[in-house]
Amino acid sequence: MSERVVLAYSGGLDTSVAIPYIAEQAGAEVIAVALDLGQGGEDLEAVRKRALGCGAVESIVVDAKEEFAAEYCVPALRANALYMDRYPLVSALSRPLIVKHLAAAARQFGGTAVSHGCTGKGNDQVRFEAGLAALSPDLKVIAPARDYAWTRDKAIAFAEDKGLPIDVTKKSPYSIDQNLWGRAVETGFLEDIWNGPIEDLYDYTADPAEPREADEVVITFAAGVPVALDGRPLTPYEVIAELNRRAGAQGVGRLDMVEDRLVGIKSREVYEAPAAIALIAAHMELENVTVERDLARFKRSVDQRWGELVYDGLWYSPLKNALDAFIDDAQRYVSGDVRLTLHGGRAVVTGRRSGASLYSYDLATYDTGDSFDQSLAKGFVELWSLPGKIAAARNREQG
Amino acid sequence: MSERVVLAYSGGLDTSVAIPYIAEQAGAEVIAVALDLGQGGEDLEAVRKRALGCGAVESIVVDAKEEFAAEYCVPALRANALYMDRYPLVSALSRPLIVKHLAAAARQFGGTAVSHGCTGKGNDQVRFEAGLAALSPDLKVIAPARDYAWTRDKAIAFAEDKGLPIDVTKKSPYSIDQNLWGRAVETGFLEDIWNGPIEDLYDYTADPAEPREADEVVITFAAGVPVALDGRPLTPYEVIAELNRRAGAQGVGRLDMVEDRLVGIKSREVYEAPAAIALIAAHMELENVTVERDLARFKRSVDQRWGELVYDGLWYSPLKNALDAFIDDAQRYVSGDVRLTLHGGRAVVTGRRSGASLYSYDLATYDTGDSFDQSLAKGFVELWSLPGKIAAARNREQG
Amino acid sequence: MSERVVLAYSGGLDTSVAIPYIAEQAGAEVIAVALDLGQGGEDLEAVRKRALGCGAVESIVVDAKEEFAAEYCVPALRANALYMDRYPLVSALSRPLIVKHLAAAARQFGGTAVSHGCTGKGNDQVRFEAGLAALSPDLKVIAPARDYAWTRDKAIAFAEDKGLPIDVTKKSPYSIDQNLWGRAVETGFLEDIWNGPIEDLYDYTADPAEPREADEVVITFAAGVPVALDGRPLTPYEVIAELNRRAGAQGVGRLDMVEDRLVGIKSREVYEAPAAIALIAAHMELENVTVERDLARFKRSVDQRWGELVYDGLWYSPLKNALDAFIDDAQRYVSGDVRLTLHGGRAVVTGRRSGASLYSYDLATYDTGDSFDQSLAKGFVELWSLPGKIAAARNREQG
Amino acid sequence: MSERVVLAYSGGLDTSVAIPYIAEQAGAEVIAVALDLGQGGEDLEAVRKRALGCGAVESIVVDAKEEFAAEYCVPALRANALYMDRYPLVSALSRPLIVKHLAAAARQFGGTAVSHGCTGKGNDQVRFEAGLAALSPDLKVIAPARDYAWTRDKAIAFAEDKGLPIDVTKKSPYSIDQNLWGRAVETGFLEDIWNGPIEDLYDYTADPAEPREADEVVITFAAGVPVALDGRPLTPYEVIAELNRRAGAQGVGRLDMVEDRLVGIKSREVYEAPAAIALIAAHMELENVTVERDLARFKRSVDQRWGELVYDGLWYSPLKNALDAFIDDAQRYVSGDVRLTLHGGRAVVTGRRSGASLYSYDLATYDTGDSFDQSLAKGFVELWSLPGKIAAARNREQG
Repeated sequence: MSERVVLAYSGGLDTSVAIPYIAEQAGAEVIAVALDLGQGGEDLEAVRKRALGCGAVESIVVDAKEEFAAEYCVPALRANALYMDRYPLVSALSRPLIVKHLAAAARQFGGTAVSHGCTGKGNDQVRFEAGLAALSPDLKVIAPARDYAWTRDKAIAFAEDKGLPIDVTKKSPYSIDQNLWGRAVETGFLEDIWNGPIEDLYDYTADPAEPREADEVVITFAAGVPVALDGRPLTPYEVIAELNRRAGAQGVGRLDMVEDRLVGIKSREVYEAPAAIALIAAHMELENVTVERDLARFKRSVDQRWGELVYDGLWYSPLKNALDAFIDDAQRYVSGDVRLTLHGGRAVVTGRRSGASLYSYDLATYDTGDSFDQSLAKGFVELWSLPGKIAAARNREQG
Repeated sequence: MSERVVLAYSGGLDTSVAIPYIAEQAGAEVIAVALDLGQGGEDLEAVRKRALGCGAVESIVVDAKEEFAAEYCVPALRANALYMDRYPLVSALSRPLIVKHLAAAARQFGGTAVSHGCTGKGNDQVRFEAGLAALSPDLKVIAPARDYAWTRDKAIAFAEDKGLPIDVTKKSPYSIDQNLWGRAVETGFLEDIWNGPIEDLYDYTADPAEPREADEVVITFAAGVPVALDGRPLTPYEVIAELNRRAGAQGVGRLDMVEDRLVGIKSREVYEAPAAIALIAAHMELENVTVERDLARFKRSVDQRWGELVYDGLWYSPLKNALDAFIDDAQRYVSGDVRLTLHGGRAVVTGRRSGASLYSYDLATYDTGDSFDQSLAKGFVELWSLPGKIAAARNREQG
Repeated sequence: MSERVVLAYSGGLDTSVAIPYIAEQAGAEVIAVALDLGQGGEDLEAVRKRALGCGAVESIVVDAKEEFAAEYCVPALRANALYMDRYPLVSALSRPLIVKHLAAAARQFGGTAVSHGCTGKGNDQVRFEAGLAALSPDLKVIAPARDYAWTRDKAIAFAEDKGLPIDVTKKSPYSIDQNLWGRAVETGFLEDIWNGPIEDLYDYTADPAEPREADEVVITFAAGVPVALDGRPLTPYEVIAELNRRAGAQGVGRLDMVEDRLVGIKSREVYEAPAAIALIAAHMELENVTVERDLARFKRSVDQRWGELVYDGLWYSPLKNALDAFIDDAQRYVSGDVRLTLHGGRAVVTGRRSGASLYSYDLATYDTGDSFDQSLAKGFVELWSLPGKIAAARNREQG
Repeated sequence: MSERVVLAYSGGLDTSVAIPYIAEQAGAEVIAVALDLGQGGEDLEAVRKRALGCGAVESIVVDAKEEFAAEYCVPALRANALYMDRYPLVSALSRPLIVKHLAAAARQFGGTAVSHGCTGKGNDQVRFEAGLAALSPDLKVIAPARDYAWTRDKAIAFAEDKGLPIDVTKKSPYSIDQNLWGRAVETGFLEDIWNGPIEDLYDYTADPAEPREADEVVITFAAGVPVALDGRPLTPYEVIAELNRRAGAQGVGRLDMVEDRLVGIKSREVYEAPAAIALIAAHMELENVTVERDLARFKRSVDQRWGELVYDGLWYSPLKNALDAFIDDAQRYVSGDVRLTLHGGRAVVTGRRSGASLYSYDLATYDTGDSFDQSLAKGFVELWSLPGKIAAARNREQG
């Protein structure tokens, strides 16, 4: 029996061409695996059949929408994960899940290698291969775009030569990755970082500048997990999908930034992530209400490291597990409602309430009912200031 | 000669009443010191005279606008200072400068004590007194609102009794602090944190929801300092003042949050800071372009600590100085232009260019001209993944 | 019925005198609570009776040795807790446990207040009262030494006046706190920080300079918990007690340092903690063998914060809980044996072995059997160096 | 003219053989560069001549002792640099300096490539090549041991074949790197991490277990730089050299650990670093006396990152520069004397004094003269405890 290679299949030109190419180069049979990560777009049954048409011996589609939402997007939300304070880790979240299903397919179909379409200068190769090294180190990796210096032109020529059932003329100027948590777009003219993005880049979001009625939504969280919208109980997938529609319709979640890739270069990226941005805004404010100050301050460093690790491809790492344990504990009381106004590209918190609130009207108010004993402040201020006071006196003396 | 008390004077009811009250309680002469921090509002010559009308033996107004912009707002910008990732430290920045001028006035006029109007449950008492402990530990502190349990009702009765030249009927429902870097508002109905803010709260910003034409501005930075708008060289004060107008007219910079005070309670705060928010957005993106990855990652923890320290009243502390030294070094190459669109409450970066850019088109592009050697990636990925791979194998084995 | 005050009772002069003093001042009945924390010294039954002799209406001794070892010392060990990289938190660990038992006694005996003997310039007042605020905020606190400015001379006069059954002539020049995890000594001549400690200060440790035979011990850990010595299974209390004897006999664990107190001053402290220092040395090395690099690096910041929090009296804080969750996860594989030589004041690791080791002979060796693929290194080094290389080129260009 | 390769030359077998080998392989002329880094051992004039005897066209020896001490060891001391809390970065400190002199020699002699003898599984290849990428990115790198899979056996055969003037029979079982800051030893039997080190491994230190008279030394620091021993002003090089002798004679500074290499594996290392360990102990204690608490706490994270960066080969990185700026500022007042007892393998601080001390006898003492106002403590403790108290009440309520 010839070797079997499990291919992460998207249905697009590059991975379609990869099927016969890998078969030829490696003398192997190809198993195509596509995942439904809530990315919308093309019907996945058509994708599945296309792989077979290109020569795959097996082709499967995995419905991973709920798994992706609950096990990958929600942890990112609980970590307020924004790489470089901006990017909610759209692609970085999907790769470890894809790897998990590739490894499962390899076990199921007797695969001995795995293949992905990533280039050698991006982050996704790392996320694939680091994930695989952790989950299934025995599987070999075949990365045609990187290891065989495969290019788009070569792919088109090869497709025409082989008569593959794909339309090679439909050449998009955009390189796109999208899933439930958001959408990433790269394209040539954005590589001049002085050029602004154009409206045509966007698909998940309407133009925020267009006048329209505001939308208002109440998000309910239980222990940091979004569990309802406007009082209707929903699964995490349903929450995110509905917020993508509603926040997207208001132009929320567009991002344009220069970003530090793991491979050592800076790149220009445009993202749209309406649900992610709205949910993180709501979640951060609910943490402001329910998380104690010292814990909240330290959690910022945990959240930052979590985002860096996941961006850097280390989802299946011991540090990631330990950070998750910290975050789990920190989320125990992050329960309650946050009211957001979605409008003009902004997701703005206008109210918050929680049975686990640490905000105390009686301590905070300046009206009658004030229970804060102001006489305690003097001693506090003096001892709080004491180390700086001693140091300042020393500095004056020493000149 | 009787003792002399230097009072931080705002011209409002509380500090006006404090003049005769302190004089009476402490048997002292009162020196009123008001600062122009770019807060706008009332004419400061009128403020100066009011202090004399209330019984101050001396009354001075210090024009500290440029000093505040250059020495307090700009360092905050270079630190991207956002307490709890949101609040640009409006009041926290002004207090150390006020303290500095109070101490100077005490030296000039022979003062032996300093007085402020802060209560015992806020942050500002700490900022005043920690600053004073560092700069002039010999000066006593008189805090009538805190130490004599002074209240608004008492103040009004006292003012009427003494016939002070102030209009006690003009009772605003808002407690406001404002300066060049922003404006803070507290008021009773916001103490219910489920209530949303109302339009009447705002003064620096127009309603972001109203349709209007977008504004576009190019901000030029030199070593992290904003030095020009749209190509016109300006002082830091001028940059901030102009951006307050232009970004404010587009509704940029409104904030509504629950915040952790240093004294241990959570409070609800509404802020508007149009220039601060626009400048920080631009500055962060210019850092993305000009600051190396490892430095950028570590700087986030420095920035966070800087913001906490300054919020917590420790401007004149040894740690603040050392963090500033780090930031100074990190800002050396943060020079260039950032183009922002100001519209609908958003300040959005649409372009960036810099002679000191670390973004390399040749390394980033996927088009012809690509100079990145993809063959290096395989070895990198394998060694990058190695510790996690070894750990995952161990974990599987150990169960 | 008169009020009842639960007193943390040590059997010494100060807390003995406090019994009738509090009874008199507060018109209250006093319940004396002493804990056996493995401190050795006086028989605790005698201590219990002395409290009754001084007028306590109830007097109990709680055997908390195993609880202290397992629930307080072991977590400190797993956090490698060394405040300022030196001090293993001897007193800081016992206070939260004492508070827990005081609160339990208050419930049992109907107490409405709790009393401790701490002064107002030390850390222990904070640890007592912060613990109580978390566990039993309704209990009042009476701190005679601080709040009534109680001094030793007053205490002696009061004891003689009342004819208390204590020997006031046996005046030790040392102020001592000791428990299973170590011993702290303060005394007047050490307040000149240029003076060296003298042999007479020490009780848990022999003079390390004296020649003697070395001792060798193998410590077995399971998930970061010490479970055996030289192959003999022991409880945590037994491990620590035996190591105090054996490492103490070799002079291990003496510390002499200037330390930052929470109340804002620096103080000189001399400690001895033979078991703690030996166990932490062994535990850190076992972590070196079994914990993955990124996790190990981040854990250092967690460990540091854990030590600061506990030193600062915040044992019962939300951040402490979340750090513990991180540490729990990080300790999962910290299992194995460490061999230590105890000699001349040093506890030196000479061997380590673990079924969960991440050290791989095959990857590490330079001999035959080397399985490390050196050809991967070139790509790794180039991409690892790339950000710095780009930045250095920019810096040269910009001058 | 043929190409010229600048070789980092040690005088040992591997780099001696590399001279004709590189010449042959690359058709190039070889320039040998040896550095005096205070490593002692063989006369460097003999080393210089040996390179010529092996066929080098130029051979130079650079006396870099003072430069290494002042510009590399002292910054490490000011950062208390201990990788994994143990290893004082002996080799990691020398590599960037060697690279600097290789680059200078390349400019002087028209070299276009640089060569080092590092393998592909160690850290030093990274330190060499990352340094070179920053300083002289145009120079090619030739690493025979790594890139040509060069082994010891091949080297010996080649040397005999070419009749090189080196004694190939004198085969040491140890792989050693040493300089002024310390000495690293690897050897086969240590690759079993349960094996203890043997006395024969050590050269800088005497057996700590042997009875001898203690030594006492007073080290004077100015702004974190050691400037005198026992009152005699010395250069940094002289301080370190003398302390290597004196602390080494007492067995101070032996280390045995499992360490995380940058290339992703764990390795067993034995070090001896008498001066480094003694100086860091003294410097840390002087910081305890002269550095304010918040600054000291944050500096620990800076110190840790500094050590990791330098270990990881990133000496010439932007983050390193910014951390140095922080440390420079933090060291401004780290001046004074520390008295150390050197004995039995321990370097123990017994006294410290400083004109810039923040320790205040008046605030610390419990004797007459106490100037600490204990009445301030109550308010401090209550507000310090408040966030935890509110959270604990919430947690009880929420269950």
